[in-house]
Amino acid sequence: MPERPSGPPLRLYPLPPREVGENGIYGDLELPAPGSPARPYVLINMVASVDGRASVAGKASGIGDETDRRAMRALRSRVDAVMVGAGTLRAEKLNLGLDDPDSRQPLAVILAGSGPVPLADRLVESSQDTLLIIPSGSIIPQETIPTGTKVLCVPASIPGRADLPELLEILRSDHGVERLLVEGGPSLNRALIDENLTDEIFLTIAPKLLSGHECAIVRGDSPAPHEPRHLELLSVHSADDELFLRYRLENHP
Amino acid sequence: MPERPSGPPLRLYPLPPREVGENGIYGDLELPAPGSPARPYVLINMVASVDGRASVAGKASGIGDETDRRAMRALRSRVDAVMVGAGTLRAEKLNLGLDDPDSRQPLAVILAGSGPVPLADRLVESSQDTLLIIPSGSIIPQETIPTGTKVLCVPASIPGRADLPELLEILRSDHGVERLLVEGGPSLNRALIDENLTDEIFLTIAPKLLSGHECAIVRGDSPAPHEPRHLELLSVHSADDELFLRYRLENHP
Repeated sequence: MPERPSGPPLRLYPLPPREVGENGIYGDLELPAPGSPARPYVLINMVASVDGRASVAGKASGIGDETDRRAMRALRSRVDAVMVGAGTLRAEKLNLGLDDPDSRQPLAVILAGSGPVPLADRLVESSQDTLLIIPSGSIIPQETIPTGTKVLCVPASIPGRADLPELLEILRSDHGVERLLVEGGPSLNRALIDENLTDEIFLTIAPKLLSGHECAIVRGDSPAPHEPRHLELLSVHSADDELFLRYRLENHP
Repeated sequence: MPERPSGPPLRLYPLPPREVGENGIYGDLELPAPGSPARPYVLINMVASVDGRASVAGKASGIGDETDRRAMRALRSRVDAVMVGAGTLRAEKLNLGLDDPDSRQPLAVILAGSGPVPLADRLVESSQDTLLIIPSGSIIPQETIPTGTKVLCVPASIPGRADLPELLEILRSDHGVERLLVEGGPSLNRALIDENLTDEIFLTIAPKLLSGHECAIVRGDSPAPHEPRHLELLSVHSADDELFLRYRLENHP
């Protein structure tokens, strides 16, 4: 396939289309205020291939390209905290901050489950504060927790799994998190959606087929079968063959 | 979420955007001629949810809406044959034809594997011709094959699995199939992509989360690990919150 000249990122929808300015995709995003006093406004951001895969050998990092990476940073600049599950940290090295060291960095929130949390090995050091969330009953060896990390124990809904409504309430009330960006993994996304704790989903569709790699952006069975959830399409951006979709979730009352 | 007024389908990309005419999405689609004399030009058309699921309880039919159904019919009107794997037939009742009985109907091609092929129960009768493909070595009881069905035996690559290049060559040379639309299931999609027998992928993204249902648009492990396949984005259409993406595959020489 001949290489096509690279065009500027575009906002395709809503109409009229326009070129995205120098701040890049989502660089000028305005997020609503939280709809509830009990939790932050919660965004999930993921990248997937056209065939719906969200990881290659457990890692999401190779799926999107530089434009996706920039859009991800733009989303981070719009929130007070960025959260990932420990499984995502086990899969690959992560930097949950912004590139510009002079920017106000979002709080990095790592949610432990029942497995190890290789914070020292996998979280790339930056100037941002790190909050390690440990569900009650889980055991984390002290020597794996880097100096400077704050540890917050929260109630567990089931052993090894944080009570998410409680966690979000604490993030809001005690840590001033008005807007929270969640970057996976699929099990955490799943739990947040199932518990009606997600306001928007940002999905980058990388122009690739990755078949054979089984991870989707949401993983795990629902505790109880439920109806499909409708999403409202808020925007579509493109950059060459890559698409950036923004959806709003309808949450049950 | 308040119901928004339904807008006309739009072509968002390539620019400039425009309303889709009365023929609907893909109603005016022009498909290239086959690039090889050895097979038809092959399209895969699938619908998936935002979280990458392509079926609910094995069925794809409930995922897209009426606009998607219409786009699917438009694609069928542009090809000489529509093919599905027998597993898709086992999952649900299918009509592989066009709604207008006066239209030239595409040939319905059902690809048997090693399981049963419930043609009489599941293929909705229409005025179209039906071709049942049986890989050599597979056994199909005669009483399950409806009167009027043509049966074509083809070589098997492995027991129970048709030799796809051979099958496509026969469809082209003996049945005049210049353009073939494949509507799944995920294992057949997968095999066609892996064997470099796919030219385009049409993907409808339904504005839904269907988590818990595990089927993606492509399923199964590759015979050998291979590199991600790049796709070129050809067009983006929207109809309310639903998106219609068209991609071209780069095939290895």
